Amino acid sequence: MTLTLSDLATALGAELRGPDRPVTGVEPLETAGPDSLSLCLERRHVGGLAACRAAGVLLPRALLGLAGDAPCALLVVEDGRLALARALGLLHPAARPEPGLAPGALVDAGARLGPGTRVEPGARVEAGAELGPGCWVQAGAVIGAGAVLGAGCRIGPRAVVDGCCRLGARVRVGAGAVLGGEGFGLARDGARWLRIPQVGRVVLEDDVELGPLCNVDRATLGETRIGAGSQLDAMVHVGHNARVGRGVCIAAQCGLAGSVVIEDGAALGGQVGVADHVTIGAGAQVGAKSGVGSRVPAGARVAGYPAWPVQHWLGSLRALRRLVPRRRGALTREEP
Amino acid sequence: MTLTLSDLATALGAELRGPDRPVTGVEPLETAGPDSLSLCLERRHVGGLAACRAAGVLLPRALLGLAGDAPCALLVVEDGRLALARALGLLHPAARPEPGLAPGALVDAGARLGPGTRVEPGARVEAGAELGPGCWVQAGAVIGAGAVLGAGCRIGPRAVVDGCCRLGARVRVGAGAVLGGEGFGLARDGARWLRIPQVGRVVLEDDVELGPLCNVDRATLGETRIGAGSQLDAMVHVGHNARVGRGVCIAAQCGLAGSVVIEDGAALGGQVGVADHVTIGAGAQVGAKSGVGSRVPAGARVAGYPAWPVQHWLGSLRALRRLVPRRRGALTREEP
Amino acid sequence: MTLTLSDLATALGAELRGPDRPVTGVEPLETAGPDSLSLCLERRHVGGLAACRAAGVLLPRALLGLAGDAPCALLVVEDGRLALARALGLLHPAARPEPGLAPGALVDAGARLGPGTRVEPGARVEAGAELGPGCWVQAGAVIGAGAVLGAGCRIGPRAVVDGCCRLGARVRVGAGAVLGGEGFGLARDGARWLRIPQVGRVVLEDDVELGPLCNVDRATLGETRIGAGSQLDAMVHVGHNARVGRGVCIAAQCGLAGSVVIEDGAALGGQVGVADHVTIGAGAQVGAKSGVGSRVPAGARVAGYPAWPVQHWLGSLRALRRLVPRRRGALTREEP
Repeated sequence: MTLTLSDLATALGAELRGPDRPVTGVEPLETAGPDSLSLCLERRHVGGLAACRAAGVLLPRALLGLAGDAPCALLVVEDGRLALARALGLLHPAARPEPGLAPGALVDAGARLGPGTRVEPGARVEAGAELGPGCWVQAGAVIGAGAVLGAGCRIGPRAVVDGCCRLGARVRVGAGAVLGGEGFGLARDGARWLRIPQVGRVVLEDDVELGPLCNVDRATLGETRIGAGSQLDAMVHVGHNARVGRGVCIAAQCGLAGSVVIEDGAALGGQVGVADHVTIGAGAQVGAKSGVGSRVPAGARVAGYPAWPVQHWLGSLRALRRLVPRRRGALTREEP
Repeated sequence: MTLTLSDLATALGAELRGPDRPVTGVEPLETAGPDSLSLCLERRHVGGLAACRAAGVLLPRALLGLAGDAPCALLVVEDGRLALARALGLLHPAARPEPGLAPGALVDAGARLGPGTRVEPGARVEAGAELGPGCWVQAGAVIGAGAVLGAGCRIGPRAVVDGCCRLGARVRVGAGAVLGGEGFGLARDGARWLRIPQVGRVVLEDDVELGPLCNVDRATLGETRIGAGSQLDAMVHVGHNARVGRGVCIAAQCGLAGSVVIEDGAALGGQVGVADHVTIGAGAQVGAKSGVGSRVPAGARVAGYPAWPVQHWLGSLRALRRLVPRRRGALTREEP
Repeated sequence: MTLTLSDLATALGAELRGPDRPVTGVEPLETAGPDSLSLCLERRHVGGLAACRAAGVLLPRALLGLAGDAPCALLVVEDGRLALARALGLLHPAARPEPGLAPGALVDAGARLGPGTRVEPGARVEAGAELGPGCWVQAGAVIGAGAVLGAGCRIGPRAVVDGCCRLGARVRVGAGAVLGGEGFGLARDGARWLRIPQVGRVVLEDDVELGPLCNVDRATLGETRIGAGSQLDAMVHVGHNARVGRGVCIAAQCGLAGSVVIEDGAALGGQVGVADHVTIGAGAQVGAKSGVGSRVPAGARVAGYPAWPVQHWLGSLRALRRLVPRRRGALTREEP
């Protein structure tokens, strides 16, 4: 895709400073050539501007004072990350497959596929599955009997969407992810464990995006739900009957136990664990690797194992360090 | 499936209090309609009974005193969870596929399949694999050359069972799980790592159940074994030569390093890690997110990183809090 | 494969003490029979030598003094693990498939396959993919459009290699692993999250080995790179734009956030998390389950959450224990 810097400036609401030239893609500052758009979103990268060979560079207005005389055009924007996201979308539009069933697609005659839907080789769509218009089922994915997918969903290679799943529009599921597996509910039957049959659903609202190898368990009864626009990174586990709100952001390898509630706009760092039936309030932020064992109020910032308010956690680390016999030299430089 | 409340009372050993009516499924208290069985297993749900529209409700005898005049029939049981598990099994019987090879099943002529076994489209069964009667290999699963599965095993969509695996009867493997991958054994060969070839087996005894995206590595020599009736949640990693006993319960995202031993009836919370060659004694309980670096005695309750006795761990948290300068107000409410 | 102990002694540079006999495989000390080679690599196993029925036993010279009169031949070696790795390679050579496309392989006419390459049933190779000579694409794996694989790569069952991936020679990818998924980059667009399109690559250099169910995200721009000979265990997550050096060793369930740098020869224990943009220096060692939030110097040994020098971490644990009211008896024996 080729666009001029002025086209981009218009599309991004940016101010173009310097010569208007065509660009065909986005490249990092060090490797960008004269056909490329590049970016300088952080103070620590400003030094690299002087040697930049790109046609133009995205620069947040906040850094303009530091930029000096750049050898290339500048696209001055208010929000660098947002401008980058949009520029990438324009210059590197997502691949769109040719509609229809590829040879080797395994689609049951009893499945209903919307117009413009594509099913790749080795992908399986079972009887009674309903796919909206413009869905893309990638190589080797499985859509179970009775699953319902809204318009424009993209199911990654080897992903599994069980028949108990209801997906809204534009849901994206990463490669190898599993939706609708049996939740982990056990009952004691004398000496042995009896698995409680899981007969509930998984509901993903519009614009939910899941990374590769995520797992979302079906509910025991009722539903496990992820709200509109929520973003999950790779390898996130969502237990049965969990309820994730809208616009929630969950980093890689987090685990939500059964019946956890994550309210709208909360954000979890990587490898966080949340104990069953615990609620994390709207807009709360949970530090990476925290273990959350009790309710987190809306808007709170917590960290630690178990998680408590960030400033208390930091205070406890300082206190611990005071208890450790001091040594001079290199090692102290590594302390948290 | 339709059953009367009196049928269920008989099957569950429950006492029916109220009118006998037919039910077709189990629904949560809030959404249950007149054709449904519902449940009230915890004190905090008793308040919902008054507005319940279900035909009948499962109620533990221990809560009977609090139930008051429920507007529906009550099925009074001793163990609520066990009754729920059984009622779900009766009203929502697990799907049974039509035996045989589906179109698109990729079964080698050299594989032996027991009577009543079903292989779904895109599933691969390699030469020399032996499947007992009534197995169900779901869409896109792979059974490797030489693997042996007992009667009634269910291998989830996209799961991989390597040829080195020996499964007992009624083993269930979740979607996307991997059994028999190479263990992680390295030898130093001058400047480079040499991977130690892994030539052992994986043995899963009868009634073992693994959640989605679990990984069980084959042994270097000998076997990696999971004992009868043990239950693993999603995304659990079991390292090479680990030995998990019978009736063990392991929550999501736990990791067992090489040669770990988990004795019968032990239980691990989510995201627990166990260091290599460590033994966790029979019936021991390990708190979620603990890091177990040394032997845990039978029956012990441990938590923390590193794990130590729960009451000592809690004592250390209290001690830490005393070291942190107090503040008044909201934040203190969040403390663990 | 049958070899004599003297053949093995020559191949391993070992000293054979005792009668030369043929062996057909390697078995553990307890179960080895007269046709087997066995091993005694650790002091705690020496006691088992007396009852050993194997033809011969690999024994490190350092343990020779303890071995006494073993009832079997000894192959005395300098490095036991290295000798084991080589002996296993000789007696249990890795399976080599018959070259060509198996029936049920889904290879696009526009893919280029080197001589001797094997594609198993249900595996998909998309147009424009380039596979070097002697590659093995196992059942149900997916190689995306434009992917490039060097000579002798082995892609495990159900693994996914996106078109953005460039693999060197002899790269091994475990079952169910995903390479080239979208990195987790978000921009705020008013009330909603906008996913930043990820258009970079994944580069795995020669001899990289990844365990089952690993995930390596593609870069936003530029590349995510893993250096030659690095070894990743199962379920490791590598975020976008991370750079892992050569000869790095990463245990199961570790997570590297975006733009992390792991320098040559560093080693991470299981379940470690590394925060975004953090560098771990060459040869550094990170204890299992650590949370690394800031730079780790070359050669340092760190542990804890957050990670700090091992001796300080241990000191903090001792200090904490002093703060906990003592009790007599069994429990104290469990302390870390």
